[in-house]
Amino acid sequence: MDFYSSQILNLVEQLSHLPGIGNKSAQRLAFHILNMPQEQVKGLADAMTNAKKNVKYCKECCTYTDDELCPICANPKRNHKQIMVVENTRDLAAYEKTGKYEGVYHVLHGAISPMAGIGPQDIRLSELMVRLQKDVDEVIVATNKTLEGDTTATYISKLIKPLGVKVSRIASGVPIGGDLEYIDEITLYRALEGRTDM
Amino acid sequence: MDFYSSQILNLVEQLSHLPGIGNKSAQRLAFHILNMPQEQVKGLADAMTNAKKNVKYCKECCTYTDDELCPICANPKRNHKQIMVVENTRDLAAYEKTGKYEGVYHVLHGAISPMAGIGPQDIRLSELMVRLQKDVDEVIVATNKTLEGDTTATYISKLIKPLGVKVSRIASGVPIGGDLEYIDEITLYRALEGRTDM
Repeated sequence: MDFYSSQILNLVEQLSHLPGIGNKSAQRLAFHILNMPQEQVKGLADAMTNAKKNVKYCKECCTYTDDELCPICANPKRNHKQIMVVENTRDLAAYEKTGKYEGVYHVLHGAISPMAGIGPQDIRLSELMVRLQKDVDEVIVATNKTLEGDTTATYISKLIKPLGVKVSRIASGVPIGGDLEYIDEITLYRALEGRTDM
Repeated sequence: MDFYSSQILNLVEQLSHLPGIGNKSAQRLAFHILNMPQEQVKGLADAMTNAKKNVKYCKECCTYTDDELCPICANPKRNHKQIMVVENTRDLAAYEKTGKYEGVYHVLHGAISPMAGIGPQDIRLSELMVRLQKDVDEVIVATNKTLEGDTTATYISKLIKPLGVKVSRIASGVPIGGDLEYIDEITLYRALEGRTDM
């Protein structure tokens, strides 16, 4: 791409390191940025550096936040005795959008994966155990329904049960709007196992 | 999204203004940026602000560049008597990647679109006319095969022909690997009209 001058090449290169952005999207983004008003480019660049500089982990649930506590942990209206364990902040966001969950969260920032060399000490599990020393009614394990997520769920369950705290796992089944014909066998089997009375 | 703290919200908001990046991708990018090493975030932010500050238009072909002349216009090995007119720098890049074109370019930064209120004076046409005062053999109009691109091509052709400079238009036809069954009628008709002897 020697037909681009060095600063454009550098911008394209930096953008193409972002996830889901290939070389072509990076070029499109780069030229869009060159066409943006100077102020807006500065706003975007500053948002990145400031967020990176100032955002830290919530000292309760370990999600990303700028304050000591995230907005959810700081909210006295939430049920602090019910903790939903998720793999990352995006999963927390997904459950928040349902508007149906009133407890708090614990963000692991990963899942146990022996294949990738990620063990229990590499995710925010010890922080969860510290929280359980306070009065907690239930831990809902909402890690992904993947090999790693299930491994993590089993590990957490074995760790917590001896403490006498209730541990539950979110249900597996056919997604709403899902057409049975296109659902994999394991999901169908789990949906059958998890059937409820009508 | 009040479950995100303000700096994260700001970053997500800024990212979601970029083209092709919806709210969900913006969240994914934001958390990826928070996970990047500080140095890398600074590199990305600096690449944006520096490119925006220093990149200008090539004084010959009007493409984006950091120098007075872009690498192509500065290259004495290129044929400076053959000018390919494109709508934007990405189109220039697309033709450069073919490795088959040895002339130079002229970047219009847009196309004539009466619907969008973009007239001939809003694109880099006067700069092209200035270049034609020098010794030029051929102008190849490679604007897009859209209503706007075709309108621009016709306009340029009418403007240039009186000067005695050869004007050509890139061919329309069935793309290589294209299955006739899935090609629209107008393209098929153009491919028929533009047939060549074998």
